[in-house]
Amino acid sequence: MRHDHIVTAKQLSRADIEAVLDRAAEIDADPAGWTDHRPDALLGLCFFEPSTRTRMSFETAIKRLGGDAVDMGATDESAVAKGESLADTVRVIGGYVDALVLRHPREGAAKLAAEHVDVPLVNGGDGAGHHPTQTLLDLYTLRESTGLDGIDVGIVGDLKYGRTVHSLARALTNFDARQHFVSPESLQLPASVRYDLHERGAAVREHTDLSSVLGELDALYVTRIQRERFPDETEYREVAGQYRIDESTLAAARDDVVVMHPLPRVDEIAPEVDETDNARYFQQAHNGVPVRMALLDLLLEGSA
Amino acid sequence: MRHDHIVTAKQLSRADIEAVLDRAAEIDADPAGWTDHRPDALLGLCFFEPSTRTRMSFETAIKRLGGDAVDMGATDESAVAKGESLADTVRVIGGYVDALVLRHPREGAAKLAAEHVDVPLVNGGDGAGHHPTQTLLDLYTLRESTGLDGIDVGIVGDLKYGRTVHSLARALTNFDARQHFVSPESLQLPASVRYDLHERGAAVREHTDLSSVLGELDALYVTRIQRERFPDETEYREVAGQYRIDESTLAAARDDVVVMHPLPRVDEIAPEVDETDNARYFQQAHNGVPVRMALLDLLLEGSA
Amino acid sequence: MRHDHIVTAKQLSRADIEAVLDRAAEIDADPAGWTDHRPDALLGLCFFEPSTRTRMSFETAIKRLGGDAVDMGATDESAVAKGESLADTVRVIGGYVDALVLRHPREGAAKLAAEHVDVPLVNGGDGAGHHPTQTLLDLYTLRESTGLDGIDVGIVGDLKYGRTVHSLARALTNFDARQHFVSPESLQLPASVRYDLHERGAAVREHTDLSSVLGELDALYVTRIQRERFPDETEYREVAGQYRIDESTLAAARDDVVVMHPLPRVDEIAPEVDETDNARYFQQAHNGVPVRMALLDLLLEGSA
Repeated sequence: MRHDHIVTAKQLSRADIEAVLDRAAEIDADPAGWTDHRPDALLGLCFFEPSTRTRMSFETAIKRLGGDAVDMGATDESAVAKGESLADTVRVIGGYVDALVLRHPREGAAKLAAEHVDVPLVNGGDGAGHHPTQTLLDLYTLRESTGLDGIDVGIVGDLKYGRTVHSLARALTNFDARQHFVSPESLQLPASVRYDLHERGAAVREHTDLSSVLGELDALYVTRIQRERFPDETEYREVAGQYRIDESTLAAARDDVVVMHPLPRVDEIAPEVDETDNARYFQQAHNGVPVRMALLDLLLEGSA
Repeated sequence: MRHDHIVTAKQLSRADIEAVLDRAAEIDADPAGWTDHRPDALLGLCFFEPSTRTRMSFETAIKRLGGDAVDMGATDESAVAKGESLADTVRVIGGYVDALVLRHPREGAAKLAAEHVDVPLVNGGDGAGHHPTQTLLDLYTLRESTGLDGIDVGIVGDLKYGRTVHSLARALTNFDARQHFVSPESLQLPASVRYDLHERGAAVREHTDLSSVLGELDALYVTRIQRERFPDETEYREVAGQYRIDESTLAAARDDVVVMHPLPRVDEIAPEVDETDNARYFQQAHNGVPVRMALLDLLLEGSA
Repeated sequence: MRHDHIVTAKQLSRADIEAVLDRAAEIDADPAGWTDHRPDALLGLCFFEPSTRTRMSFETAIKRLGGDAVDMGATDESAVAKGESLADTVRVIGGYVDALVLRHPREGAAKLAAEHVDVPLVNGGDGAGHHPTQTLLDLYTLRESTGLDGIDVGIVGDLKYGRTVHSLARALTNFDARQHFVSPESLQLPASVRYDLHERGAAVREHTDLSSVLGELDALYVTRIQRERFPDETEYREVAGQYRIDESTLAAARDDVVVMHPLPRVDEIAPEVDETDNARYFQQAHNGVPVRMALLDLLLEGSA
């Protein structure tokens, strides 16, 4: 893999993705073999907005490789509050560390920052933009569970605003996967994503009713529908209830359907699903560690 | 010691307690011998309310064992703020790490959380509930100073609301210790604790006047009386002043009386006491490190 | 170097300074040779006010030496909020670690704290007081670029309130450096600093017009002029614009003039300067790491 920076999943070819997932699988097969693999690596964590899960997962990843992390902390306490530019901030922190993770509320921030650092930078999410490591761990989980070719994936919930969904949908076009998008009409895929999928010749179908496609699916990727997207509580409850996954959903689905969710969840998946063999969302969160270990390791290898 | 989780000091037998204290003493005798003992251990710190002292002490402990920690950070910035349940949060973080410390404002949170994780969980304090590692370091300090059998311990201050005191009092019933509770009437031991002590056949006496028992004590365990417990400032000052430990208190006590305090202190112990041989509270805080090292080491050993 | 605590740059002799800079140069020449030099060292970070840059630089330094850090975190969440004294806080944390960095909003805090700890303490900035490691990294950068003897240094901007400037100016009196102070009249050096420099026989000149001295300078040390020092925006803009460094400034200066800045900058240096060979400010920030590694290493050596 020859990338200096990982800004978006779009930049990754099928071969790039497979290189990361293969390395992650190697790590998963023998975690103890990697605990002293990058003893001198120092990872800088620049989170311009909070994201506990992503931050902890990256921090765990570098520490499981034997390395360490330094965290910028909250931006309201930093040089940023004194008016420093993003370029200056990452240039200074990039001078301390061997690789950087950037999380930023503004779309395009990762691309801009990457131009100002000499060490590999990984986008940990930039606003409505990209979050490539989430996509990589989703793909890793799918590959482990169902393979990535010859599958039917249902993507359910808020498809309009969900950065995670847009990125996953585009990445799946590298594989022989049929994508079924299930959402209320008001939260359907934006035209730009639909256009991209079409351009890449992806097999795409859209639904408003989950039951019409449920029986065909190898995997169900569920996302949170946010209360604030709806003008009133009643409408929200009605819509959210319609896409909620529970035991009756599983009963109508294939026995081996795999249920995924980027977490945190609120009510989208009933707790009764947690203990079934179909549930993969906690495993999926856990997979963030080997996948990020793999990506960091490949980037550090490339920059060494 | 065969426990998966340490939720309360109550679950620990005399043998369990001694196993931890013995291991802590081994560590204290040769700290350099333990610095590479758990090089691959990663401890998750889930503090749902701030507690700098406890967090730093656990973080120091795992790092002194050669391991590392990942910290969830403030909850107002995390998935918790998005409505995630405690069970989901600890399940995800439990998937990253080898052991977890949980601090939570709600009593019973540690017990609930422990049901949802596959790695050992240590209660770092749950509201008015339990704080077992504070008790273990208190016992360690006492054992080092006076032994745990055949002693008279005075426990002074706010005995009504002090979680630390309740836990220590119950734990001392495993040993041949006479307990003297000294407090204003409005801050006496709650009935539930008094009942527990009685059930266990503990030798217990209650006092409002410290001087009436001071001369008999091997150890004085002092706690903070909080301003907010009193309707007015005058009453608070009067009561707090009555139980303040200073040079004149020491003059009336046994020469070798040991003065302890869980810290932070405000005015309960005069600074002039700090430099005496009687003062043990800074040593006591310091003992949190070997005691937590010992506990984590035993739990990691058990789960390996 | 025989100091237990580093409270102010004033306490450091020329020999002390050179010992730190020489050690930093050794580290810079072979960073890989130092990554396992202090594997057991634990550094306590006590920041009573936020300072991301200084904190990250110290944390990077100890981790690049193979050691680790524990961070007190925000004071509004700590024992401090319960009314604990500074002396108690540092005494407890000093009991956990091998060395301490203290940052505090109150001048004199570092000196006070140093009296209560048994491990080396480094002042990471105390209000309007001192910030000795900033001075050491400034000197290191100057020494690398121009040497420290026989040079003309221009110090530009807010000379009245700038702690960094006062400390650097005093430290430079240990060397054969001519100092040129360039500022608006309202922001000239305070009498106390001018007196100190005079006492030490320093070669000092003051200017309001940068162009009058620009051509003589080997180095330009630029500092931020803060908006809040001026009664109105217009006056601020006029003054700030007058001392702004851009390509035209460089054109009028010596070809090899070195431009430094403690960062963060806002508008004091135009971005066009960043890519010139004259710019040293990012290198200067980066130099904080080897300089702090050197200082910590020498202190740990001394206390071992």
